[in-house]
Amino acid sequence: MAFSEFRPLNEKSLVEYIKSVPSLSSKLGSNLDELTIKEVGDGNLNFVYIVIGSSGSFVIKQALPYIRCIGESWPMTKERAYFEAIALKEEGRWCPGHVPEVYHFDRTMSLIGMRYLEPPHIILRKGLIAGVEYPLLAEHISDFISKTIFYTSLLYRTTTEHKSAVAEFCGNVELCRLTEQVVFSDPYKVSEYNHWTSPHLDLDAEAVRNDNALKAEIAELKSKFCERSQALIHGDLHTGSVMVTRESTQVIDPEFAFYGPIGFDVGAFLGNLILAYFAQDGHADAENDRKKYKEWILRTIEDTWNLFQKKFIALWDKHKDGPGEAYLPAIYNNPELQQLVQKKYFEELFHDSLGFGAAKMIRRIVGVAHVEDFESIADASKRASCERRALELAKLLLKERRKFQNIAEIVSAIRKVQ
Amino acid sequence: MAFSEFRPLNEKSLVEYIKSVPSLSSKLGSNLDELTIKEVGDGNLNFVYIVIGSSGSFVIKQALPYIRCIGESWPMTKERAYFEAIALKEEGRWCPGHVPEVYHFDRTMSLIGMRYLEPPHIILRKGLIAGVEYPLLAEHISDFISKTIFYTSLLYRTTTEHKSAVAEFCGNVELCRLTEQVVFSDPYKVSEYNHWTSPHLDLDAEAVRNDNALKAEIAELKSKFCERSQALIHGDLHTGSVMVTRESTQVIDPEFAFYGPIGFDVGAFLGNLILAYFAQDGHADAENDRKKYKEWILRTIEDTWNLFQKKFIALWDKHKDGPGEAYLPAIYNNPELQQLVQKKYFEELFHDSLGFGAAKMIRRIVGVAHVEDFESIADASKRASCERRALELAKLLLKERRKFQNIAEIVSAIRKVQ
Ligand SMILES: Nc1ncnc2c1ncn2[C@@H]1O[C@H](COP(=O)(O)OP(=O)(O)O)[C@@H](O)[C@H]1O
Ligand SMILES: Nc1ncnc2c1ncn2[C@@H]1O[C@H](COP(=O)(O)OP(=O)(O)O)[C@@H](O)[C@H]1O
Ligand SMILES: [Mg+2]
Ligand SMILES: [Mg+2]
Ligand SMILES: [Mg+2]
Ligand SMILES: [Mg+2]
Ligand SMILES: [Mg+2]
Repeated sequence: MAFSEFRPLNEKSLVEYIKSVPSLSSKLGSNLDELTIKEVGDGNLNFVYIVIGSSGSFVIKQALPYIRCIGESWPMTKERAYFEAIALKEEGRWCPGHVPEVYHFDRTMSLIGMRYLEPPHIILRKGLIAGVEYPLLAEHISDFISKTIFYTSLLYRTTTEHKSAVAEFCGNVELCRLTEQVVFSDPYKVSEYNHWTSPHLDLDAEAVRNDNALKAEIAELKSKFCERSQALIHGDLHTGSVMVTRESTQVIDPEFAFYGPIGFDVGAFLGNLILAYFAQDGHADAENDRKKYKEWILRTIEDTWNLFQKKFIALWDKHKDGPGEAYLPAIYNNPELQQLVQKKYFEELFHDSLGFGAAKMIRRIVGVAHVEDFESIADASKRASCERRALELAKLLLKERRKFQNIAEIVSAIRKVQ
Repeated sequence: MAFSEFRPLNEKSLVEYIKSVPSLSSKLGSNLDELTIKEVGDGNLNFVYIVIGSSGSFVIKQALPYIRCIGESWPMTKERAYFEAIALKEEGRWCPGHVPEVYHFDRTMSLIGMRYLEPPHIILRKGLIAGVEYPLLAEHISDFISKTIFYTSLLYRTTTEHKSAVAEFCGNVELCRLTEQVVFSDPYKVSEYNHWTSPHLDLDAEAVRNDNALKAEIAELKSKFCERSQALIHGDLHTGSVMVTRESTQVIDPEFAFYGPIGFDVGAFLGNLILAYFAQDGHADAENDRKKYKEWILRTIEDTWNLFQKKFIALWDKHKDGPGEAYLPAIYNNPELQQLVQKKYFEELFHDSLGFGAAKMIRRIVGVAHVEDFESIADASKRASCERRALELAKLLLKERRKFQNIAEIVSAIRKVQ
């Protein structure tokens, strides 16, 4: 067989591959020699091909055994494609409306075939930079997070199911290690990979490396990341892992998925919205001062959290007599108690989300991988001033997160940063 | 082969088994037909045989596919013997002075051969009931806990090692489920297995089942138990899992071992010492009012925690530039910060230990499995009064644990219970 062992594909060899896989070729129509194939991977890690035939289309994503944006000098297991595939399927099971369907998975080739999210779908981050409002975004993302998290947590699962899923995803350790390094370690030490808008933020980056209180907090969050298997988290839920139109919201790229702390996903999304907010002043021009758009982002932050909480609690109430073993109905048997435990649960989750969100913001300003929201601001001193404000807020959230009671207070804190 | 598939042994067939295993038979001397074999299992789950030959001895422990003290109506995987064996070996690797050596393990037969802890070794619980002081107990147990926990945590291990060990011990899920049920669930609901000194404690048991604040706290601890993989914990570290002489302390029976919260082990031991303390008034008689002995127990509680903390931190300092990935030396690079993170770490661990310890106390008074400390008090109303005081303290600790700063305050709280 031509593809009985791993080999990196290109636009040409991909045609041969597709011809050898009926479940793929059958989607495209009769003439397989006139396909349109385009590599579009703009992400950091993998290769993504859009394949269009006369009567159908799909996307092929292949993992190579290194990190694309760095090169072969940073090896990375191609087994990540396996974890991405099983995570996509699990997420799709619970939230099919917001996850692309998987058509095909080939473990040997580290290759996934999935629905092509056709135009006008674009990466959310690009929409946020362009100043486009997505009226359903908070509704959809809260749906995705609440369902994928709830249904893979012990609120819905038995201990037996949970431990077996936890064990399986322990196999995705290399990707967990990558997060540990780039989110929880590198920004707090001197690292060859770190960079920032220099010299403007030199002192700010140094201050991060010398902030004992910050380092104590990041250690606590890192421990939770490494040790707390609450649910199947996406693991990389920034605004570059979401594709949108005004009507549709699709979450892609869960190759970092594992059983981890819920707040890591919630925080990733909220933290990246906050980055988008602070980048707006850098995108403002004579035509559009972005003031109205900034208000929309703040509303979306608030709505995302509040809707997430509301939907998650609704799922909990709906399934309180279900298979989940965390809160047995014979014990949590009165409405007052049910409310008490839910309040307690969400207090911790809120503070976790703030902490992880803040960590994700910091690493995008002084760590290895930055965000286009800021990178696309050409004027370095303008960019630095946006980044500095985001960094100040993130440090406040990381250190003082337990003092905030609700998301409205976070929005106020964001507004206060000058 | 005679033992190519599982079969429950008895004192007779065990001789045949030993003859078929050279590593066992060679320990006993020449005449294998004159062995002394005695089943001594007084535990709840398994069968334990002491085997003595002319020039050597060992203990054989076999797991049957059910819970011994309940019978075949409560099935329980015999694979627990596998996890006990690998846990014994791992504990023995880090703390050989306080763990019996494993001579032989047979997975098919669910059977472990290990060092016979010869007389005058007795089960610590029995010594505590008899009023015997063990001057080295705190020193030894703090050694065992600090070493086995530290060396299997991310303070010493890499993420890669950690996740692979976590995944392996996820397989011990049936034993985890048993703990979930008997420690975190049954005492807080009506259950056929629960019992207590009745009618004396009828209202106390009912109060536990109706205490919303208590149920909210036990839920939080149960989540930590199910979700937080901090280190390889023993999982059943009560005073019946420790064998002692005045000079020797040996920890046996880690069949509940898995990667869980550290406070569960620390709490189990301290909680059982507190039970022993409250039982003393029931053992007092004209000859011995047990006052002095109660002081020794309190001192041992205080010393155990303080020595544990001191030794654990010493290991942390010693290995701060070692393989552990939790606190990288390039980040945690000054003594002030090192102290800050250790203080934070121990604050959480202290409160976890109090919570888990309290949970273990409560379940021994109103749950399925009681402790001989109380059961051996023949006078029911005397027993109930001891149990009630232990229960009151446990409820206080579970609900108010975050208000306590150090172990001396716990000792004061114990003294205050009337
Ligand atoms: N299903 C899809 N439909 C359309 N475009 C996609 C799809 N999946 C990925 N892409 C495009 O490929 C890019 C990289 O994909 P991604 O899964 O994020 O890869 P990486 O893991 O390298 O970050 C995305 O930003 C998006 O533009
Ligand atoms: N290595 C040993 N040396 C001497 N006695 C032992 C040894 N292991 C177990 N025993 C005896 O057998 C009893 C039950 O052992 P244990 O491992 O606690 O079994 P279980 O899992 O059934 O509780 C102990 O209480 C102790 O009296
Ligand atoms: Mg991506
Ligand atoms: Mg990716
Ligand atoms: Mg035992
Ligand atoms: Mg046992
Ligand atoms: Mg270290």
